[in-house]
Amino acid sequence: MPLVPSDPEYAQRVQGSFAKQTFMATLGASLTRVAPGEVTITLPMREALAQQHGSMHAGALASVLDSAAGYAAYSLMPADAGVVSVDFKINLLEPAVGDRIEARGRVVRAGRTLSACTAEAWAMTAEGEKLVATLQGTMMCLQGRGRVG
Amino acid sequence: MPLVPSDPEYAQRVQGSFAKQTFMATLGASLTRVAPGEVTITLPMREALAQQHGSMHAGALASVLDSAAGYAAYSLMPADAGVVSVDFKINLLEPAVGDRIEARGRVVRAGRTLSACTAEAWAMTAEGEKLVATLQGTMMCLQGRGRVG
Amino acid sequence: MPLVPSDPEYAQRVQGSFAKQTFMATLGASLTRVAPGEVTITLPMREALAQQHGSMHAGALASVLDSAAGYAAYSLMPADAGVVSVDFKINLLEPAVGDRIEARGRVVRAGRTLSACTAEAWAMTAEGEKLVATLQGTMMCLQGRGRVG
Amino acid sequence: MPLVPSDPEYAQRVQGSFAKQTFMATLGASLTRVAPGEVTITLPMREALAQQHGSMHAGALASVLDSAAGYAAYSLMPADAGVVSVDFKINLLEPAVGDRIEARGRVVRAGRTLSACTAEAWAMTAEGEKLVATLQGTMMCLQGRGRVG
Repeated sequence: MPLVPSDPEYAQRVQGSFAKQTFMATLGASLTRVAPGEVTITLPMREALAQQHGSMHAGALASVLDSAAGYAAYSLMPADAGVVSVDFKINLLEPAVGDRIEARGRVVRAGRTLSACTAEAWAMTAEGEKLVATLQGTMMCLQGRGRVG
Repeated sequence: MPLVPSDPEYAQRVQGSFAKQTFMATLGASLTRVAPGEVTITLPMREALAQQHGSMHAGALASVLDSAAGYAAYSLMPADAGVVSVDFKINLLEPAVGDRIEARGRVVRAGRTLSACTAEAWAMTAEGEKLVATLQGTMMCLQGRGRVG
Repeated sequence: MPLVPSDPEYAQRVQGSFAKQTFMATLGASLTRVAPGEVTITLPMREALAQQHGSMHAGALASVLDSAAGYAAYSLMPADAGVVSVDFKINLLEPAVGDRIEARGRVVRAGRTLSACTAEAWAMTAEGEKLVATLQGTMMCLQGRGRVG
Repeated sequence: MPLVPSDPEYAQRVQGSFAKQTFMATLGASLTRVAPGEVTITLPMREALAQQHGSMHAGALASVLDSAAGYAAYSLMPADAGVVSVDFKINLLEPAVGDRIEARGRVVRAGRTLSACTAEAWAMTAEGEKLVATLQGTMMCLQGRGRVG
């Protein structure tokens, strides 16, 4: 069933909060899709994000997966809410090599306080896309905390 | 019981591999302790690593926790091995605010192929330290892959 | 793309190994679907599996989710392999109440040594089905260990 | 620092709730230690709990680890609260063989709504003890729900 956001201005709210995450700018990540309960963040590959073998560091992948999952949850929260991560699990499936990573977050179950989310990191190349990492996590709604968020 | 590294040059090997993780330099993280099965990475807090509320982004915490756990495992691996992360779970306990984060990784069980590790992120201030995040994860030994690592 | 089992007798092999898991019989679980990379285990609800509030205990859910994910991975492994769980993460989404639980496991990425899997627990009632828990985990292939498995 | 339970009758409350978990009786598990923020559950090994190789099924381990972690959290909650598991991650380190398993749960950080916990499963034999599995998880306080708990 389609997820209905309680705040009709959810997209602007997600964009505004994302813009405050200075770490996303440090990584070079941008918000490329916002829908009810679904968010995509795109991160171009570059040398500055590498681990010791030259592929993207698991922590850089975790960063965009976490933000994609968190903002997917946030898109369904009330207008005055804030969001924080409670926990997430990352599985690394393949070396993350390619032109860019697309981290696609999705809400599995939206609760009043907690939301269960998943996210997938796809490595994009001219030839196609490959799933390189997955996240399963829990996001928490901080009610009446929109101003700090 | 004390963990005995199979490679007496383990510390130099960890330092050499860490130096190749350009993402650690991008974050501003440094390797501050290497012992058999135990590694600490220190990450000063700064604006460029923030999430939307001003504390350190969970992805930056995950990055140093993952590297601390991975290098703890790597310190016990054979001289010609490489290391990659299989998976990790992060719990976010408190907002990560303070002067710097110390990510302390430790091997719980070192296997021939897989090592189970934990890591803790402590926020350090003039007043003391506070546990802000924990990791439980699995690291994989890539045998005979030391040259790529 | 469809997953192709390397062992054409994969279904019998999965059934044979499942039959050795005495714990599944203790729970009252049965193997209700085996396809390449996909396995369903069905567990009728009963008082003996309850937690303190009367719904199914998270450990009983974890048990069938773990076996469903493990056998999904095992279905794609060579004829002489064994399988063991490395790790899994369970998210509990809703109280598990209903007539029975269907745990549906699926391989996300099959590697030579490690396979990444997911599994979903659905509570089934006359009215329909509801997702109550999810698993994300890693399964390991023990090569040449089929006789013990 | 020592954890101080808000309810002086915490031990009876934990015992009472544990007694309602019929699944613990089905497994044959008993509550063998309750302290503020720390709980041990003991599970004798037997054929009925085995996986396909004869050691204890990961799901049986997960069951007692989850209950040990959950009751560790519950011991610190208000008298009228209930507890449910939000998520947990299990790492399987060694085959679980021996006379019995001791699952030792501990609170890492007790929050008003969420508590972060760890738990360890130790296989006990005449020769000594061996760590066979670990849990990292999140437990939720249901306020004013003590009567259902």
